[in-house]
Amino acid sequence: MVSTLLSSKNFTNVQDVKDINGLVQLALQMKAKKKKSKIGADKRIGLIFLNPSMRTRISSQIAAKNLGLDIIVLNLEKDSWLLEFNETAIMNGSTVEHIKDAAPILGEYFDLLGIRTFPTLKNKDEDYKELVLQQLIKYSKLPIISLESATLHPLQSLADIITIQEHFSLKRKPKVVLTWAPHIKPLPQCVANSFAQWMNRWNGADFVITHPKGYELSEVYTQNAQIVYDQKTALDNADFIYVKNWSSYNNYGQMPPVEADWMLQLNKLPNNPKVKIMHCLPVRRNIELSSEVLDSNHCITTEQAKNRVWAAQSVMHEILKQIQK
Amino acid sequence: MVSTLLSSKNFTNVQDVKDINGLVQLALQMKAKKKKSKIGADKRIGLIFLNPSMRTRISSQIAAKNLGLDIIVLNLEKDSWLLEFNETAIMNGSTVEHIKDAAPILGEYFDLLGIRTFPTLKNKDEDYKELVLQQLIKYSKLPIISLESATLHPLQSLADIITIQEHFSLKRKPKVVLTWAPHIKPLPQCVANSFAQWMNRWNGADFVITHPKGYELSEVYTQNAQIVYDQKTALDNADFIYVKNWSSYNNYGQMPPVEADWMLQLNKLPNNPKVKIMHCLPVRRNIELSSEVLDSNHCITTEQAKNRVWAAQSVMHEILKQIQK
Amino acid sequence: MVSTLLSSKNFTNVQDVKDINGLVQLALQMKAKKKKSKIGADKRIGLIFLNPSMRTRISSQIAAKNLGLDIIVLNLEKDSWLLEFNETAIMNGSTVEHIKDAAPILGEYFDLLGIRTFPTLKNKDEDYKELVLQQLIKYSKLPIISLESATLHPLQSLADIITIQEHFSLKRKPKVVLTWAPHIKPLPQCVANSFAQWMNRWNGADFVITHPKGYELSEVYTQNAQIVYDQKTALDNADFIYVKNWSSYNNYGQMPPVEADWMLQLNKLPNNPKVKIMHCLPVRRNIELSSEVLDSNHCITTEQAKNRVWAAQSVMHEILKQIQK
Repeated sequence: MVSTLLSSKNFTNVQDVKDINGLVQLALQMKAKKKKSKIGADKRIGLIFLNPSMRTRISSQIAAKNLGLDIIVLNLEKDSWLLEFNETAIMNGSTVEHIKDAAPILGEYFDLLGIRTFPTLKNKDEDYKELVLQQLIKYSKLPIISLESATLHPLQSLADIITIQEHFSLKRKPKVVLTWAPHIKPLPQCVANSFAQWMNRWNGADFVITHPKGYELSEVYTQNAQIVYDQKTALDNADFIYVKNWSSYNNYGQMPPVEADWMLQLNKLPNNPKVKIMHCLPVRRNIELSSEVLDSNHCITTEQAKNRVWAAQSVMHEILKQIQK
Repeated sequence: MVSTLLSSKNFTNVQDVKDINGLVQLALQMKAKKKKSKIGADKRIGLIFLNPSMRTRISSQIAAKNLGLDIIVLNLEKDSWLLEFNETAIMNGSTVEHIKDAAPILGEYFDLLGIRTFPTLKNKDEDYKELVLQQLIKYSKLPIISLESATLHPLQSLADIITIQEHFSLKRKPKVVLTWAPHIKPLPQCVANSFAQWMNRWNGADFVITHPKGYELSEVYTQNAQIVYDQKTALDNADFIYVKNWSSYNNYGQMPPVEADWMLQLNKLPNNPKVKIMHCLPVRRNIELSSEVLDSNHCITTEQAKNRVWAAQSVMHEILKQIQK
Repeated sequence: MVSTLLSSKNFTNVQDVKDINGLVQLALQMKAKKKKSKIGADKRIGLIFLNPSMRTRISSQIAAKNLGLDIIVLNLEKDSWLLEFNETAIMNGSTVEHIKDAAPILGEYFDLLGIRTFPTLKNKDEDYKELVLQQLIKYSKLPIISLESATLHPLQSLADIITIQEHFSLKRKPKVVLTWAPHIKPLPQCVANSFAQWMNRWNGADFVITHPKGYELSEVYTQNAQIVYDQKTALDNADFIYVKNWSSYNNYGQMPPVEADWMLQLNKLPNNPKVKIMHCLPVRRNIELSSEVLDSNHCITTEQAKNRVWAAQSVMHEILKQIQK
C-alpha cells in the first residue's frame, strides 16, 4: 500500500481523508510551486458535469492539466443522457441508459473520474443516499472525485480550510462562524454540510453555526458544533464568517419563513478589523450579503476560488499515487 | 500511392475497406500496445456532433489523442447551426448556412473530420442518400470518418468484428445472429444495416438475421444473409447474438405491430454455455433484453464499447498514412 | 515597455493597434510558417462564448494552440450563467452572479481571455457602452481579446485586411466598397462598424459605403468615408465588394423598409474581371447575395475565414509579448 494522505481511492467526503493538515500543506506547496509533479502523465481523467459549473469546471481542468493528465470533459446537462439507477427498472420511460451499463464503459475509457451531481431537493432519502456517486463507484470500479454531490462539496471545503490557514497566523485557534443567509430559491445543503463536516474533523478552529429556526442541518455533519440561533451573538469575536444559504433539511427542500434580517452587512461585522468573509460563490449581492461587504477588504472569496485549483490538485495527486503501476 | 488497409481516404461504409482482417489485426496490435504511432502529430481532427453521443465521443477522442492528433470537438446539436443542403435554396427560413459555404472552411481548418449525423426517419430517399456525409466529402475536400451516419455505423461494426474475433477461437466459423428487439420508439436502421454489411463482406461467420415480419432491412445490406422470421429457430446453436432494435425500412420509420415476445431473456438463449450477447448500447433494460442477460457473463457489451477506441484508432491511422506529406 | 504592434494589452477595437500593416505582415509571416513561436507555453487562455460561433471558435483555438497556450473553452450560452452588470443591483431576479465577483476569479485562473458577446439590439446606449467587455477588462485585470462584441468585430476586420492585401498587388490603392445586403431578421452592426473603422484607420484603400436610406452607421466608425446611396454607382470600378447586412443604427435594431433590390448578383458586378467578393459568413444564399456570386471565382470568403487564424495568432502573440515575465 502506497503512503498517501487519503484513506480511500475515492474523494467524496472527509471520511476519505487520513490527514487534513497534510493535504492542506501539499496544496500550499503546489501553490508555491515548491512541489511539481506530472504523476498523471499517461493517465486520463473524465470530468462529468450533470449540471452547470464555472469554478469547479475550470479549477479541476487546471489541476488535472498541471499533473499531466489527459482530460475529457463530458457535459451531460440538459437531459442529453438521462441515466437509470433503479436496479429492477423496466426502461420504458425517459431514462435511456442504466448506470450498470454506462459506468463499466467509463471504467474502460478512463483512469479516474470526477463527477458533479445535484440533489432533487424533493426526495431526502434518495439525495442523502448519494445514489449517482455510489453507483458510479460501484459499477465503474474507478477512483471517483466528487465535484459536488447531492449533499456534500468536499473540494470546496478543502479549499476553504486552505484559505483559512493562509489568512490566520495567531497561535490560538480562529473562531469560524458558518452563518445562514437569505436567498430567493431553495438551495442544496451541500456546502454547509460539507463545511461543518470538515471543520469538525479538522478541529483547527472554534466552530459555530448560526441559522434561523427551521434551518437545522443534519446532525451527521454538525455533530458537536455549537449552534446559536441569534446571529449577532454567534458573530461576536469571529475571525472568519462563512456566509451561505441552504434550504431546510427537516422540512426537506422547503424555505420556512424567516422574520429577522439575516443578510450580512458591514454594521453586523464583529469588532475585529481582521475578520474575513467567505462565500463559495456564486453569490447574489444584496440578498445573501451586501455589496459593501463583498467589495470590502474583509472579503476573501476570490482567494477561496483560487484555492480550488490546489485543493483539486492535491487530491488528484494522492489518488494517482494509489493507481500508479 | 501508400499501401493501406483502406480503399478510400474516407471511412463511411465497408466499401472503403480493402482488408477487414488486416484492419482487425492492426486494431488488436494497437490494443496490445504492440503498435504505437504518433502519425497524427502536427495534424488536426475536427469531431462534429450533430446529435448527442457518449461512447463515440469519448472513444474517438482517445483514438485521436493516442495518434498525436490535435482535436477540436464541435457540438452542433440543438439547432445551434442549422445547415442548408439544397443546392438552389433561397435561404429565408431556419437554415443559417449552406454546406457549400461552411464545408470549405472546415477544409482549411482541419486535416480530417469525423462527423456524427442521424436520419430523419421520415424521408427514406433523403436519409439513404447520406446527404450530409456526401456533401461534406464533396465540399470540404477532407478525408471524412463517419461517427455514425443516417443509415450506417461502420466504426461500430468494425469494433463488433474485433470483439467477435477476440471471443472465438474454434477452427470453424462462428454462427452470428442479429436479432431484432423491441423498443419504445422508432430507431434508425444504422447499426443493423452496417453490421449486416460488414458480416457479409467479412465472410468470417455464418450470419443469420431474425426479425418480425415488416422489419425487413434493405437488401443492399442484407444481401444473401439467411433471414429467419422465427427467433427461436434463428438462435439455435448461435455463438454470438447481436441484439438491436430498428424501425421499419419498407414502411419507413414506422413501428408495425409485433405480436410475439421478442425481448431476449435467459430462457431463450441457445444451449451453448459460451454464447455471447452483443449490443451497441445504450440499451433499455427489460425492454430490448432482460437485466438477467445483461448482468450475465454471456454479455460482452463492455468489450464492444472498449474496442470502439481501437477501431477508430486503426481507421484514423490508415487515413493519416494517406495524407502524410 | 516591450516593443509591440499594439498600443494596449487588450484587443477590442482598432484603437488598440499601433501598426496595422505591421500586424498584417506578422500574420502573413505566421501563415507562411516563416515565423513560429511558442510564446504562450506555460500560459492559459480562457475562450468565453456567450453566443454560438463556428469560425471564431475554431480559429481562436487553432491560433492559441499554435502559440503553445493551454486552452479552456467556456460555453456560457443558453442562460447557463446569467451575469449581473448593474453596480447597485439587488440580485433577486434571473442573474445569478455579478461580474464583480466572477471576473476576478477568471483573473486568477487565466493569463488572458477571449470573449464573444452580442448586442441586445434594443438598448443602443447599453450596447454601445460595451458593458460586458469593459467590465471584464476592469474586474478581471487580464488582457482581453474581443471575439466579437456588441458593436465591433476587430479580429474579423484584421482578417479582412490581410485578405485584401493578399489579393491586390497593383501600385494604386484598391477601391473597397462595403455594401448593405438584405436579410430576414435584424443583425448587429458589428462587422460593418468594425470594417469601416479599420478601413479608415488603415488608409490603404479608397473606401466607399453604400446602403439604403435609414441604414446609416454611426459616424464614430464611418468618419470621412464616402457614403453613396445608389448601389450601382458605388460598385463602379470596385476591386473589392464587402457584402453584409446590418440593422438600423438610428432607428435602433429596426429594419426600415427597402424598395430597391439590394441583393448582389453577377449582373451587378462592376466591369472588373478581378473584382473580389467578401463576406464574413455565415451567409444566406439568394437573400444576401446570389449563389452564382458565391460559387464564382470572384468569391474569397473561404480565404477570409482561413485568415481568421492568422489574425488571432498575430494578436495573441503581441499580447503575450507584453505579459512575459
